[in-house]
Amino acid sequence: MLPDRSFFDRLADAAKAETLPRFRTGTSVVNKLEGGFDPVTEADQSAEAAIRRLIEAAFPEHGILGEEHGNIGLDREHVWVIDPIDGTRAFISGLPVWGTLIGLYRHGKAIMGLMDQPFTGERYFADGEKSTYRGPGGEKVLSTRACDALSDAVLFTTSPHLYTGELKERFEALQAKVRLFRYGCDCYAFALLAAGHVDLVIECGLKPYDVGGLIPLIEQAGGIITDWQGGPAEMGGEIIAAGSPELHAQALEMLRAR
Amino acid sequence: MLPDRSFFDRLADAAKAETLPRFRTGTSVVNKLEGGFDPVTEADQSAEAAIRRLIEAAFPEHGILGEEHGNIGLDREHVWVIDPIDGTRAFISGLPVWGTLIGLYRHGKAIMGLMDQPFTGERYFADGEKSTYRGPGGEKVLSTRACDALSDAVLFTTSPHLYTGELKERFEALQAKVRLFRYGCDCYAFALLAAGHVDLVIECGLKPYDVGGLIPLIEQAGGIITDWQGGPAEMGGEIIAAGSPELHAQALEMLRAR
Repeated sequence: MLPDRSFFDRLADAAKAETLPRFRTGTSVVNKLEGGFDPVTEADQSAEAAIRRLIEAAFPEHGILGEEHGNIGLDREHVWVIDPIDGTRAFISGLPVWGTLIGLYRHGKAIMGLMDQPFTGERYFADGEKSTYRGPGGEKVLSTRACDALSDAVLFTTSPHLYTGELKERFEALQAKVRLFRYGCDCYAFALLAAGHVDLVIECGLKPYDVGGLIPLIEQAGGIITDWQGGPAEMGGEIIAAGSPELHAQALEMLRAR
Repeated sequence: MLPDRSFFDRLADAAKAETLPRFRTGTSVVNKLEGGFDPVTEADQSAEAAIRRLIEAAFPEHGILGEEHGNIGLDREHVWVIDPIDGTRAFISGLPVWGTLIGLYRHGKAIMGLMDQPFTGERYFADGEKSTYRGPGGEKVLSTRACDALSDAVLFTTSPHLYTGELKERFEALQAKVRLFRYGCDCYAFALLAAGHVDLVIECGLKPYDVGGLIPLIEQAGGIITDWQGGPAEMGGEIIAAGSPELHAQALEMLRAR
């Protein structure tokens, strides 16, 4: 038996109870990687723990891949893929474009997913067939928009500094072709793409939990999300999401390794 | 007689009635500058018109400097400085980090100011003595945070691509010194600085209306905002805002022309 929307809502609400009260409070930050800046907050760790408790109680036969607390049963038919706070840098800067990501994989394919932004009150959910939004302005079914030319496209990426070497060359060549590009949104940009507000989201170096919850949101809204070779996005890496197949093909042509 | 908070609220509410219903609706975009991308939406123009009608009715003796509809009486004792939608690119991308900016200058000095983000329901207001926040989480008096070293600072700027030549060199040298930098927030970053969530906001090429409403928010929360020479920010240009005098001095030392 698969979970329904109300179960995903329970997970998101449990995470929100840990994240939102700590947002904009100056919670202490611990560096996960010495030398680099990869902050992890109490909110991150306790939100993932809360989500895992609910999953383990309801679906003990499922596996879990999480950012903060390790992995369980990754070879099982169903695996939950969890990022309690995607966009930790946004979180610690007070910027409400972080989100809680929860995906459900079956045989390695992302089939259901959720992105929750507790401060703005936005919840994006893909139920296996369609993607929906709840938040300010009400509830609606999402669809990506038809933008068929790079020269008309709005592109988001988290930071141009994440690209190096050939990836940087290919990304910058693509960036130079679009109508408008913006930096700094992590998961929120993917949600905007699912909702038809932006056309392309391109990232590099993603972990599975950075993208697992988002794949169903994009696909079930009519978009395409793959790696830069056109293969599955489920394991992360270099990722491209596009609102239409035409735009995806044009962008992939520039990003693909020769 | 000066306006009170309720008058500023009327202005912000009037603007919100024009902007919010057009947010995330795919409003058509017109390029103001041929060749460049400087979009202006119906929302921008009608919000400024709504604000101006209220000001002209209540304070006919005041001047107005606005982004969209020209200037009136800039030599008068009081001048309103209005940007109906600061962050138009964010607006057209569906990203709720744009804001309505309304400043009041007296003899050329910004004395009261407001930043309103209608989608998140956040309103930042400086009444001449203190800066306050209303929004999710309630109402609070704002103060900037004590961060006295560049190496501890969180820095925001709208886009690294806006800097050229010597400005770019100086900005990049400073960016290399901070703990964390983020791109892409326009006015919202200044509000986060007033609220004590970030430490430095640096911009170049601002117009007076990009900054006029924000100066009182920063200053009346305990921060410092000047141009890159340490002079007044009221006329825009290259701008630096810092949460503490120590941090401002350290950053200015790197940004100042020799």
